[in-house]
Amino acid sequence: MSVLLEFAMFPTDKGESVSDYVAKIIAFIDKSGVNYQLTPMGTIVETETFEEALFIIKGAYEVLATDSNRIYSSLKFDIRKGKSNRMQSKMKSIEDKLNKKF
Amino acid sequence: MSVLLEFAMFPTDKGESVSDYVAKIIAFIDKSGVNYQLTPMGTIVETETFEEALFIIKGAYEVLATDSNRIYSSLKFDIRKGKSNRMQSKMKSIEDKLNKKF
Amino acid sequence: MSVLLEFAMFPTDKGESVSDYVAKIIAFIDKSGVNYQLTPMGTIVETETFEEALFIIKGAYEVLATDSNRIYSSLKFDIRKGKSNRMQSKMKSIEDKLNKKF
Amino acid sequence: MSVLLEFAMFPTDKGESVSDYVAKIIAFIDKSGVNYQLTPMGTIVETETFEEALFIIKGAYEVLATDSNRIYSSLKFDIRKGKSNRMQSKMKSIEDKLNKKF
Repeated sequence: MSVLLEFAMFPTDKGESVSDYVAKIIAFIDKSGVNYQLTPMGTIVETETFEEALFIIKGAYEVLATDSNRIYSSLKFDIRKGKSNRMQSKMKSIEDKLNKKF
Repeated sequence: MSVLLEFAMFPTDKGESVSDYVAKIIAFIDKSGVNYQLTPMGTIVETETFEEALFIIKGAYEVLATDSNRIYSSLKFDIRKGKSNRMQSKMKSIEDKLNKKF
Repeated sequence: MSVLLEFAMFPTDKGESVSDYVAKIIAFIDKSGVNYQLTPMGTIVETETFEEALFIIKGAYEVLATDSNRIYSSLKFDIRKGKSNRMQSKMKSIEDKLNKKF
Repeated sequence: MSVLLEFAMFPTDKGESVSDYVAKIIAFIDKSGVNYQLTPMGTIVETETFEEALFIIKGAYEVLATDSNRIYSSLKFDIRKGKSNRMQSKMKSIEDKLNKKF
């Protein structure tokens, strides 16, 4: 199984710039050993079980919870049985169809 | 603390109508005893801890996982310390400002 | 056709409470005459064309753009041909299946 | 101004695999000349005005509208005044803080 999770999470009581907080979340994700990709709008992680993906969300929340009074998060899941390495294969499928490298 | 979670979750391998699957998720949420509100675009739940909200997401996933090969979900969190009953108070705050009942 | 749009939009440079800004967006939506429902996590609008839904998003943005340096928004669309009044019918479908009023 | 839009859009009446439809949307975005990045969970575009971002959403919808009875889309905006090239600078800010290349 392939669980793809894309999410952004940030405090809304810390003013306009929140990159210090985002960096702490990325540091946690990096240390967790999960397969992930940072994007300009969030982080994409791929796990083999739904529980592992929830563990990442919980950890990201805990990184922010100490310091922040209000936290916002936007997330999406794309879960598919009988597949793996979709972080690569979903991109490759589009590249092949359009005959173009992304 | 008040954890507000709004989410939609559905199989994408079952054709155009998915209300049978959504109904099963709502039945699970209803049985869980959590404070929730059904909307035309998803379900809103309010919990006192982040873990309770994750428990709802996990349960909703498990409702679909048996039957579905591919599941999509879109979620958002609004988490705020030192507050409760925001399912009511967030609405009332807007109603008061606009002098209008929703 | 039925275009259902659920969205939240708020400034992130105005501190923890943003209900004054949300109220301004709701006032705009209310004045626009579109069919809408306020929820604790956003606003749901139903339109007959995609353009009308984009008009609401554009108007909401313009309400915030004057005062705010940074704006965040999370949105989802559920668009279906050959249907109307889904703000009611999607709820009723679940109510009928669960034999319960929401 | 920098408008960052991250979005996924797909038909839900075409079965489990929808990459043919996603490829058509990417072909449209590529032809539009906008600055974009494909990810395993959607597409990120950066524009200088809100209208340009709405134009991309509208075009993506029109790509799918001919063939599909039901379309789902999940989107988020991060809009910030007085900035540009955030597709690069948001990543670099995190890289610098963590002393790591992504």
